[in-house]
Amino acid sequence: MTGSHIGSFQLIAQDHQARRGRLVTAHGTIETPVFMAVGTKATVKAMSPHELKMIGTQVVLGNTYHLHLRPGEDIIAHLGGLHRFMGWDGPILTDSGGFQVFSLASLRSITEEGVEFRSHIDGAKYFLSPEISMNIQMKLGSDIIMAFDECLPYPATEQQIKQNMELTFRWLLRSQKAMTRPESLLFGIAQGGMDYGLRVKSIEQICSIDLPGYALGGFSVGEPISLMYHLLYRVAPVMPQHKPRYLMGVGTPLDLIIAIDAGLDMFDCVMPTRVARNGTLFTWKGRISIKKERYRNDPQPLDPDCACYTCRHFSRAYLRHLFLSNEILSARLNSYHNLYFYMDLMRQARAAIEEGRWATFRDHCRLTLTKNDENG
Amino acid sequence: MTGSHIGSFQLIAQDHQARRGRLVTAHGTIETPVFMAVGTKATVKAMSPHELKMIGTQVVLGNTYHLHLRPGEDIIAHLGGLHRFMGWDGPILTDSGGFQVFSLASLRSITEEGVEFRSHIDGAKYFLSPEISMNIQMKLGSDIIMAFDECLPYPATEQQIKQNMELTFRWLLRSQKAMTRPESLLFGIAQGGMDYGLRVKSIEQICSIDLPGYALGGFSVGEPISLMYHLLYRVAPVMPQHKPRYLMGVGTPLDLIIAIDAGLDMFDCVMPTRVARNGTLFTWKGRISIKKERYRNDPQPLDPDCACYTCRHFSRAYLRHLFLSNEILSARLNSYHNLYFYMDLMRQARAAIEEGRWATFRDHCRLTLTKNDENG
Repeated sequence: MTGSHIGSFQLIAQDHQARRGRLVTAHGTIETPVFMAVGTKATVKAMSPHELKMIGTQVVLGNTYHLHLRPGEDIIAHLGGLHRFMGWDGPILTDSGGFQVFSLASLRSITEEGVEFRSHIDGAKYFLSPEISMNIQMKLGSDIIMAFDECLPYPATEQQIKQNMELTFRWLLRSQKAMTRPESLLFGIAQGGMDYGLRVKSIEQICSIDLPGYALGGFSVGEPISLMYHLLYRVAPVMPQHKPRYLMGVGTPLDLIIAIDAGLDMFDCVMPTRVARNGTLFTWKGRISIKKERYRNDPQPLDPDCACYTCRHFSRAYLRHLFLSNEILSARLNSYHNLYFYMDLMRQARAAIEEGRWATFRDHCRLTLTKNDENG
Repeated sequence: MTGSHIGSFQLIAQDHQARRGRLVTAHGTIETPVFMAVGTKATVKAMSPHELKMIGTQVVLGNTYHLHLRPGEDIIAHLGGLHRFMGWDGPILTDSGGFQVFSLASLRSITEEGVEFRSHIDGAKYFLSPEISMNIQMKLGSDIIMAFDECLPYPATEQQIKQNMELTFRWLLRSQKAMTRPESLLFGIAQGGMDYGLRVKSIEQICSIDLPGYALGGFSVGEPISLMYHLLYRVAPVMPQHKPRYLMGVGTPLDLIIAIDAGLDMFDCVMPTRVARNGTLFTWKGRISIKKERYRNDPQPLDPDCACYTCRHFSRAYLRHLFLSNEILSARLNSYHNLYFYMDLMRQARAAIEEGRWATFRDHCRLTLTKNDENG
């Protein structure tokens, strides 16, 4: 029986290993494969919630680390939760804070109990543990809560990987125990570094706990991209078939296509908005760096094959002008386009899987998405 | 006969000295009193053209100085003119470049012929004259073109003021002669410093040339605000009754009310967007500085009496959080609100004049607009 209760995940189509699914959350149903927009500090950078809806955003991410430091989960809870605070009524996924503690904070001290660290804002001392992270995420009112895990640098020794995955597993058990909010779905995170055997072991460990979804953490941490691709194809099939599979922090448009091809369902990345602010734009014919002299006089839309607000109203020459003039509208129009492009890519991926033409779509994407304006 | 040809200005109501008018341009009719949004570098900072329409913006300003330097009027003309370049199909007014030459550029050398100066961007040498300024503005495809004038610092001697207004007058004659684009309306600019007699003389001089509109330049240049108010009430009546009267670069919400009360019709100022980016917000109960600690936990909308997107969707606490986090959405939501507030103020002013209750509206504004959150 496939219910439509909170947490149910229905596979509605499969083509090769690519999956077309539907996950029910307290704030609506998510059609997968899905790209989730990163809203680090309770805003997807340069975008309004209204615009996120317009481009078909299904899920917004919030960052436990950032929101805990500022403004603090108690203020957000007082104001009615993260949905209300940021004006987003669709599903919200929050990460556990672990990744930022390891990438942003300083003076970390890790014990079995949790992690002590200093804020990157003012150096103030903080402590995060599975229980505290769950408590923060529940106060935020998150629909999908990520287990508190330890993030591993790359490269790492076998010994480090083993310790890391064991601690992550023990922290998952504590995360699960601390979860008391029925409307929130807890996802477990498998680690295991870049070692196939340990990855599989970590996945088996994490997935031995019955949870509404599972994630792969520790990818896109500096490893060669071919290594990630290779591993994804081998480890994705080990993950439970009837649960959503989330690849954390990935990636480029091509990364998403490869990951979907390997059988993954959910993705998030700061890339589309971050590179947009630096003038790098994704199109169906490859990447464009809008600051280039060649666009100075170019009356064409950024991507003639794109139906977004930016492409329907403005020329490349105007976008270049805004970028060189350091105007806020540059960040806005570029972010809008790149996020639209990601959402459109996922829309087309879902349609291709449903219609049994995934392999053709994938191969087409492989050819076009890797181009850039150096060579054309 | 009051035609509706390009350039016609119809006074449709008057209440005390406040005027309710209608100016026809090649890109649509402007209802006055009007606040024009400043789009310095072919974008109103942090706003999209779609949003400008949504809040009832009637006219957008472009800056000849900035657009001449970057991207250059030839590129804009090649791309179909400023309207098309920036995606704004309503009326556009362009200034002559004079003000920026005197406030931004360095190494100015003024002769009868024009002004030589160095770009504030890269130090490159440029020359502007009435003929060159008209030519640039015509290439931009501006609906309202401002005559090229010399801007006077404050304070200035009687001798300086006299020389300045005489040169400005001779440059107006040359500006008029250089104008060859029938769809563009040329407005003359009166100078005259803060001296009543010279102001009147300059107005009489400028208005002796038959033009579709006249402006007061050289206000809001550092003089005491009470001096400007005093002069406006005395000199506005000297301006032609049946032509639009434009007060350049002014001002605060209260400044606009006073100026309308004195009989002026058109206004522009960077203030609403500039202070928005610094967290200062206008409301119907006075100014708010959103970064204050007192708004940390405040669930109220910025202005409960405002119907804008910002006020309908977000709390003061969220706006404070965005500001402290230096998020682009902070500049966006704040700019949106402040510009909406200005547009709303003008909408209400127009209605009050039409309905014969201007004095009541003016007195109400005088009481409320001067408050700020220091005292309540």
